[in-house]
Amino acid sequence: MATRLPEKMLAVAISQPGGPRVLKAEKRDLPELGAGEILIRVHAAGVNRPDVQQRKGAYPAPPGASDLPGLEVSGEVAALGEGSSRFRIGDAVCALTPGGGYAEYAKVHETNALPLPAGFTFTEAAAVPETFFTVWHNVFERGALKAGETLLVHGGSSGIGTTAIQLASAFGAYVIVTAGSEDKCAACLKLGADRAINYKTEDFVAAVKDATDGKGANVILDMVGGDYVGRNYHAAAVDGRIVQIATQGGAVASADFSKLMVKRLTHTGSTLRPRTTEFKAGIAAALEAQVWPLLATRRIAPVMDMIFPLKEAWRAHERMEEGEHIGKIVLDVG
Amino acid sequence: MATRLPEKMLAVAISQPGGPRVLKAEKRDLPELGAGEILIRVHAAGVNRPDVQQRKGAYPAPPGASDLPGLEVSGEVAALGEGSSRFRIGDAVCALTPGGGYAEYAKVHETNALPLPAGFTFTEAAAVPETFFTVWHNVFERGALKAGETLLVHGGSSGIGTTAIQLASAFGAYVIVTAGSEDKCAACLKLGADRAINYKTEDFVAAVKDATDGKGANVILDMVGGDYVGRNYHAAAVDGRIVQIATQGGAVASADFSKLMVKRLTHTGSTLRPRTTEFKAGIAAALEAQVWPLLATRRIAPVMDMIFPLKEAWRAHERMEEGEHIGKIVLDVG
Repeated sequence: MATRLPEKMLAVAISQPGGPRVLKAEKRDLPELGAGEILIRVHAAGVNRPDVQQRKGAYPAPPGASDLPGLEVSGEVAALGEGSSRFRIGDAVCALTPGGGYAEYAKVHETNALPLPAGFTFTEAAAVPETFFTVWHNVFERGALKAGETLLVHGGSSGIGTTAIQLASAFGAYVIVTAGSEDKCAACLKLGADRAINYKTEDFVAAVKDATDGKGANVILDMVGGDYVGRNYHAAAVDGRIVQIATQGGAVASADFSKLMVKRLTHTGSTLRPRTTEFKAGIAAALEAQVWPLLATRRIAPVMDMIFPLKEAWRAHERMEEGEHIGKIVLDVG
Repeated sequence: MATRLPEKMLAVAISQPGGPRVLKAEKRDLPELGAGEILIRVHAAGVNRPDVQQRKGAYPAPPGASDLPGLEVSGEVAALGEGSSRFRIGDAVCALTPGGGYAEYAKVHETNALPLPAGFTFTEAAAVPETFFTVWHNVFERGALKAGETLLVHGGSSGIGTTAIQLASAFGAYVIVTAGSEDKCAACLKLGADRAINYKTEDFVAAVKDATDGKGANVILDMVGGDYVGRNYHAAAVDGRIVQIATQGGAVASADFSKLMVKRLTHTGSTLRPRTTEFKAGIAAALEAQVWPLLATRRIAPVMDMIFPLKEAWRAHERMEEGEHIGKIVLDVG
């Protein structure tokens, strides 16, 4: 362990399930490191939809994880656990954390951390892990998106959406998004989307068919669920893959499963947080090899919405729940 | 072309959409062979659920296929199309046909035919292709069932079900089936099922959980749909695959898609008939290499329900629609 660590750290905890104001700053002991783990002196922490769910009491932390919210951080390596050798003290990193990101110090297995992308600020780097791990696994691994195929992304202006647009576009896919306003559609097009559908004024099934000569989308990344499930089956191409990463519009819904069968669709989904450290390490390695070079040239960069001080995490949650954000909301930890 | 072919053949056609009695015997011209095709002098033809759907007008023949029902036959090669070299005149074969099986002569691409399994009668061999092609693709290729995993088969006593039981059992899976009577359950157990659930007296979700130490089934082969879809999501194991091959209980249904996401299920499905000749040739090659040896030793054999004369195909359809059959219904063509 390195020296000169403080006794206590500032953290923002969920004082009780509820609205944004239940997020309260408090003093905590620093996390204790296990074998292979690193302690990060956090400079910035990303805010994600699952944090909001956790705050409401709907998404409890998995066993063994910190009760503090926060699934991604950037910062400097401050201490090394037993056998940890991937980084040195002082290295600038960003990492996917199983929780505990809303704090001055966070621990993570060294395989779930990556070097800070070249030229990135800490606030930019904190906006990378959660959406990049999620999009990489669900769109490219689970959804098997290939160059020349069409990707439909619902919620195109969200953190996930803006990441999916850029990655899919960089890897040669034709990208269609849905978003809820003309401003959001314009932002998506600017990021590289080939077609943006304002779902408030257009039916996305008809628009996707129209944009693909009637063929439909090869991969659909969906965080809406509800009546989108059945509509996705209509919007998908033969042999299409639909990947469910949230059900914000409702988990229980009706769909025509003869469509799934006749079009040979594959409807699958996943959640990132409960996966093993080893599984996440595999995604980290793929990202470092295939995506980090694109970040270094800024061919791809996270879309930054707003930055709030750690102590005002509640404002970041309000911002997310208002739904007006475009891209990532980040906490500045100092 | 070989000589001594008759001018006309007996066939059973769908005179109009409707009940079993719309199946009428009539004289037809023999099919004309294209490149790579063979003409089979049919000795027996299998009867399948899609034939019933087609008879009702609900499942039209795909473009280019015969309007006659019948998706599988056995018989002797009677003529060779241009460039056809896999078989010789007189060879005993069985084949998957894109239609046209209810007739004295049927044509098929040579790659979609297989030698008669050693020691098999023509009626047994006619009972093989449709269910073996379907189960092989959907359970082993699409569903990726592996030795040591658990397969749940709905409709265990059907042609598909009895084939799935035997194949999955032979390849080392733990097999659970649902069926609608004690007799049917007993037949499934005799074929190698490890657990048979009478769905009229037991809840299959609870029974599957109970039989798998709470883990659920790794692969589910479902031809029911309706409320089975949502229940399958509950009965499936983490990372489970659900393969939909029919929706006899209803195509439009409600399900909890958060289950699909959190358990990382893969819900997919397919229909065999519209697939390309090349695709079916790939399944045929896999079956010949991996399953034909098991048929030759009778480690696996089709379960025969009843045999009807071609002219009485309507009786075969009545039998299927009554739902009392266990295994395959076959037409004797002579």
